[in-house]
Amino acid sequence: MSKPPLNPNFKADVAESFKAQQAMALIRATLPVIEHGRVEVHMPWWEGVTQQNHFVHGGVVGMVADSTAGYAAMTVAPAGAAVLSVEYKINFTAPAVGQKIIGRGQVIKPGRRLIVSRADIFAVDDSNEKLCATMQQTIMVLPEGV
Amino acid sequence: MSKPPLNPNFKADVAESFKAQQAMALIRATLPVIEHGRVEVHMPWWEGVTQQNHFVHGGVVGMVADSTAGYAAMTVAPAGAAVLSVEYKINFTAPAVGQKIIGRGQVIKPGRRLIVSRADIFAVDDSNEKLCATMQQTIMVLPEGV
Amino acid sequence: MSKPPLNPNFKADVAESFKAQQAMALIRATLPVIEHGRVEVHMPWWEGVTQQNHFVHGGVVGMVADSTAGYAAMTVAPAGAAVLSVEYKINFTAPAVGQKIIGRGQVIKPGRRLIVSRADIFAVDDSNEKLCATMQQTIMVLPEGV
Amino acid sequence: MSKPPLNPNFKADVAESFKAQQAMALIRATLPVIEHGRVEVHMPWWEGVTQQNHFVHGGVVGMVADSTAGYAAMTVAPAGAAVLSVEYKINFTAPAVGQKIIGRGQVIKPGRRLIVSRADIFAVDDSNEKLCATMQQTIMVLPEGV
Repeated sequence: MSKPPLNPNFKADVAESFKAQQAMALIRATLPVIEHGRVEVHMPWWEGVTQQNHFVHGGVVGMVADSTAGYAAMTVAPAGAAVLSVEYKINFTAPAVGQKIIGRGQVIKPGRRLIVSRADIFAVDDSNEKLCATMQQTIMVLPEGV
Repeated sequence: MSKPPLNPNFKADVAESFKAQQAMALIRATLPVIEHGRVEVHMPWWEGVTQQNHFVHGGVVGMVADSTAGYAAMTVAPAGAAVLSVEYKINFTAPAVGQKIIGRGQVIKPGRRLIVSRADIFAVDDSNEKLCATMQQTIMVLPEGV
Repeated sequence: MSKPPLNPNFKADVAESFKAQQAMALIRATLPVIEHGRVEVHMPWWEGVTQQNHFVHGGVVGMVADSTAGYAAMTVAPAGAAVLSVEYKINFTAPAVGQKIIGRGQVIKPGRRLIVSRADIFAVDDSNEKLCATMQQTIMVLPEGV
Repeated sequence: MSKPPLNPNFKADVAESFKAQQAMALIRATLPVIEHGRVEVHMPWWEGVTQQNHFVHGGVVGMVADSTAGYAAMTVAPAGAAVLSVEYKINFTAPAVGQKIIGRGQVIKPGRRLIVSRADIFAVDDSNEKLCATMQQTIMVLPEGV
């Protein structure tokens, strides 16, 4: 993002919002990278998030992608605004197998009312990364909060 | 579905597959309805699956929808086949707030290679149901399993 | 739709908007059904809209679906509002081959800011109808017009 | 794409397939760039493809995107294979207004059975380009043709 952030305090606000989500703690996801227009969500592989083949469950990959793209959007929203997930679409491109999952999210089109963002999800084994899903998302901005 | 099931044992096979998914136990989801061409996934509201406003997290709603539409597809697949989620698209239509979440999935178009299915997710409070998300999904059938 | 229309003049307004779209004339599409919460778009098969196998081109099926779901949304919008297509997702379920194409659109979730709608596209041969595509769409309402 | 093309004759095959689509001629689209893993579709602005505000109709933008992402996929498919559009999802990010529309398509994930591709659609005015839509698509490969 070339323009200055609408919310100068976006890093702290995004971190606080993420921390308040029990569902992110449930799957052991963290948000180690928060920049203007992009974030990263990390999640270790562990038994609790798997499906019948011991891969990470597609729905959990979707959860990671939803948070990744959604928090990328929040970094470009005004202070005090709520960002709501309107919809998303995700393609699975490889089994999510590895030591951890990394979601990389970026804003494609910032807008006053709507933001379009994208998340690519990688399965990481040692230092090899493999794209396992890609998502396109629409976010609604409510300037006044929820 | 008007045609007879390709897999006469689909109920037991679907139930067993669901039970083998740790991620469904993690969010406390169950699969109480398994019919030819449609299933229901239920999940109680509980603190662990919430976001910052104590609604069910959108990503968890997505997980429920993914399983709902995916297992609906599995009911029409041949015995021994694997069904893989190719992609899905979900719209959120209301906050997922209530005592429980019910996902209702149905097959829109069964196919030999690909199945298109849909899931509607309802938030249930007392006996009132409110549509909180609707999803369209593409499933790939691997006749030989994974 | 159980509630009364927000725009009492919706039929005339929708018909007029459709008529002003050159692209609908280009593919020979018409809008013979306009009701509160649902519409139908019809298009005859003709050589100009085909792909290499003489089926209706998937992109044209998408155009019909976009108009079908979009005008369904316009029937529930306030008078004077503009309705813009935010995004859509379409699955193709059968080749679009037949004498004509019928799109049937309905509103899934009306909203003040956003409307979610759906379109099912059928290929019609004699009196047989076959589902050839299904679409889920998000529409933005701009109360003040464009 | 780093690997060599599965179809050494892909450029001629893609060009021929595009030329056989009446619907592409109808909207005056051309395919001036065909490379391994990516293509460009161009379409001039003209009255016939517009909606009521004289912008290019969203459905036509969708048609261009569908062809762009689909032909990108065809460049990585085996000789003689048919590539079918399974589904796509498109977000509109700006009005499609300008002298021409350029679709840039690339393969995200090539596969033996399924290919995931993406198209970005730009409205071009003088030499300024503006992203007006972005699309994610799933393509099915039928090795034996249709």
